[in-house]
Amino acid sequence: MAEAKKLGGAGLRGQVAGETALCTVGKTGTGLTYRGYDVTDLADNAQFEEVAYLLLRGKLPNQAELDAYKGKLKSLRTLPDALKLVLEQIPKDAHPMDVMRTGCSMLGNLETEQDFSEQDDKIDRMLAVFPAIITYWYRFAHEGVRIDTANTESDSIGGVFLELLHGKKPSELHEQVMNVSLILYAEHEFNASTFTARVCASTLSDIHSCVTGAIGSLRGPLHGGANEAAMELIQKFQTPEEAEAGLMGMLERKEKIMGFGHAIYSESDPRNAIIKKWSEKLAKEVGDTVLYPVSVRCEEVMWREKKLFCNADFFHASAYHFMGIPTELFTPIFVMSRVSGWTAHVKEQRANNRIIRPSAEYTGPEHQDWLPIGERS
Amino acid sequence: MAEAKKLGGAGLRGQVAGETALCTVGKTGTGLTYRGYDVTDLADNAQFEEVAYLLLRGKLPNQAELDAYKGKLKSLRTLPDALKLVLEQIPKDAHPMDVMRTGCSMLGNLETEQDFSEQDDKIDRMLAVFPAIITYWYRFAHEGVRIDTANTESDSIGGVFLELLHGKKPSELHEQVMNVSLILYAEHEFNASTFTARVCASTLSDIHSCVTGAIGSLRGPLHGGANEAAMELIQKFQTPEEAEAGLMGMLERKEKIMGFGHAIYSESDPRNAIIKKWSEKLAKEVGDTVLYPVSVRCEEVMWREKKLFCNADFFHASAYHFMGIPTELFTPIFVMSRVSGWTAHVKEQRANNRIIRPSAEYTGPEHQDWLPIGERS
Repeated sequence: MAEAKKLGGAGLRGQVAGETALCTVGKTGTGLTYRGYDVTDLADNAQFEEVAYLLLRGKLPNQAELDAYKGKLKSLRTLPDALKLVLEQIPKDAHPMDVMRTGCSMLGNLETEQDFSEQDDKIDRMLAVFPAIITYWYRFAHEGVRIDTANTESDSIGGVFLELLHGKKPSELHEQVMNVSLILYAEHEFNASTFTARVCASTLSDIHSCVTGAIGSLRGPLHGGANEAAMELIQKFQTPEEAEAGLMGMLERKEKIMGFGHAIYSESDPRNAIIKKWSEKLAKEVGDTVLYPVSVRCEEVMWREKKLFCNADFFHASAYHFMGIPTELFTPIFVMSRVSGWTAHVKEQRANNRIIRPSAEYTGPEHQDWLPIGERS
Repeated sequence: MAEAKKLGGAGLRGQVAGETALCTVGKTGTGLTYRGYDVTDLADNAQFEEVAYLLLRGKLPNQAELDAYKGKLKSLRTLPDALKLVLEQIPKDAHPMDVMRTGCSMLGNLETEQDFSEQDDKIDRMLAVFPAIITYWYRFAHEGVRIDTANTESDSIGGVFLELLHGKKPSELHEQVMNVSLILYAEHEFNASTFTARVCASTLSDIHSCVTGAIGSLRGPLHGGANEAAMELIQKFQTPEEAEAGLMGMLERKEKIMGFGHAIYSESDPRNAIIKKWSEKLAKEVGDTVLYPVSVRCEEVMWREKKLFCNADFFHASAYHFMGIPTELFTPIFVMSRVSGWTAHVKEQRANNRIIRPSAEYTGPEHQDWLPIGERS
C-alpha cells in the first residue's frame, strides 16, 4: 500500500472529499447559497417545496411544475399499515430521532428502491411522509390516537406537520415560519450527516440506507441537537437580566453553550437574521415577554464577551416553541428539511461515484505472537 | 473560509482520515492484523468471541474472561416482543440487509444507549442478538414459525446462527467454519461501512445509530455484496470447463466479475487461503464435485488472464452454500461479524473525537438572481 498522506488536522477539516454543485457555505465568510441562489432570497420568496425541487431537479420550477410537484407530494402522505404497526411498537420515551431512523429504515423494507431509476420517486415519498411518520408516532405514543395522515387542509410540508401535530390547520403565520425554517435547514454542503449519506451512497447502496444513516448522524448532539440545547438554555431564565447573569456564570465556568458559533462561518450565520425576524413576529403574536427578550440578551452577551454569533439553531428554539412544538421534535423537523439536501447529494454521488474509503494512521502494537489461552494473564 | 486542500483522487483514497490501533491492512502488501495479531494465527487458533473481545477490550481474554464473556453473550439472545412484532411486519421479499438495519434501529428504540458508559453492554447485546434478528425474521417470513432464539445447544455466535437457521445443532465442522468466517470478516480498518460508523460516532450519536448506518453502507454492492455475487457467478457453471469458457467470455465482454482483487491488497488477500481450505473440507464432506472445482478453476483463470487474486469473498460463497445457508443471508453474516470491528472503531472515535466534516469542491453556478415564479421557463 502506498504511504498515506497525513492530515494537518483531525476530522478531515479543510480536506476536499468530493465535488458538489449544490451549495456553498461561507464562501465570502458569511453567505450560504443553494445552486447559486442566496438562502436569504429563497427564505424571503420561495416555498420549501420550490427549494426541494431546486436541489433535487436542478432548477427552480415554473408554476405548472410546482403545482404538479406539490400535488405529487400530497398524494404520497399515506403511511403503510405495516409502518403504522411498527411505529405503535415504539415506546413514548424513545428518542424521536430513533423513531425517524427506524421509520425511514422500515419504509425501505416496504418500498425498497430496486433500481436507481426509481430514486426520484423514493425521495419524494420520504419528503412527503416524514412529517406523517413522526407525528403518527408522537400522537399515538402520547395521546393514544391513530391520526389520518393523508387528509389535511394544509398543502405545504411545514403546514402538514403542524396540522398533524396539533390536529388543526395552522395559522398563515405559523405555516410561513415552518416554510422558512425548512428552507434554512435544507442543505449545508459536506456536514457530517450529508457526508454520511454520501459515504453510504458511494457503496451504491439504496436510498433508504443513505437517509437512515444520515438521520443517525444528525442525531448526535454535536450536529443536529443544537436547537434543542438552545431551548433548554433559554428556558432556564425568566428575564434578560437573569439570562445575562446566568450566561456570565456559564462562561466563567467554561460550560458549553449551544447555538453559537460555527465550524465554517467566521463572522455570522446568514440564517440567523432570518429566523430571528420570524421569532420576533411570533413572540408578538403569542404575547411573549420572556423567551424572545431572553434570547436577544443571550445573543448580545455572547457577542460582547466572546465575539460568538448566533447560528441557525439559536432563534429556531424560541420560534418553534412559540408554535407549540415540543422541544424533542425540533431535530426531527431538521430531518424533514435536510432530507432534501441529503438526497440531492446522494444523486450527485451516484452520478460520479468512487467508493469513499480513506486510510488510517496505525497507532497500535507491532506484530504480536499468538499466545495460547492457558498462557495469558 | 480557508482554501480547502484538493485531493489527488476521488473517494479519499490514500488520505488519512484518523488514527486506529485496531488493524493494519496490507502493510506489507498482503497482511491483515487485528491489534498486532496476524489474522491467520487468529483464524487457526481462536474463537470468534475471543477475537471480538480482543478488538473491543484491547487484549486476548484468559480462560476465565472468555468463559464469562461467552456466558454474557448467551444471556443476551432474547428478542424483545416489540422487536419480534416489527420483524413480523417485514415482508418475505425484503432485502435481508434492510431487515438487519431495521432490526438494529428498532433495538435502539427499545434499549437506547443513554450514556457512553453503557457502550460495552449495548455492543455485546448487538453481537449476541444479531443472529437472532435475522433468523427470526427469515424463518417467520419463509416458514411462518416463531423461533425461540434464547434456547440453543450451540454456544458460539456462529453455531447459534446455524442452529437457529436450520433448527438443529450444527456439526462441529460447520460450527468451526462459521467461527473462522466470522474471524476473517471481523475488522478491516477504514472501509466504507466502518468509516460510516466513525462519521456517525464523531457527532457523538448513540451506538445504534452508528451500527445502523454501517449496515446501510455494507449493503451496497461495491462493499458487502461480493460474496453473494460470487455465488451467483459460480452457480452458472456445471463443470470447470464451462467455468473457464464462461469467464473468458465475460472477460472479453469486459463484464464485472465479483470476488477478485481488492482496493488495498496488491498481491493477495490473506483471508483467501484460509477460507479456501475450509471450503475444500466442506466440499469433501457434502460430496461436492461441482462448486468447489468450478471455484478453483475461476481462481486459476482470473490469475492467469488478469493477475487478479481471489479476495475473502470468493471461497466464502461455496463454503456458505455447502452449509445450507441461503445466498441472501451471506451479507447479514458479514454484519454479525463486522459489528465487532465497527463498534471497536466507535469506541476509538469517541475516545479521541473531532467531528468529521470535510470540505467540498464547488462545481455549481455562480450567483443567481432570484426569479419570480411567473418569469421562469
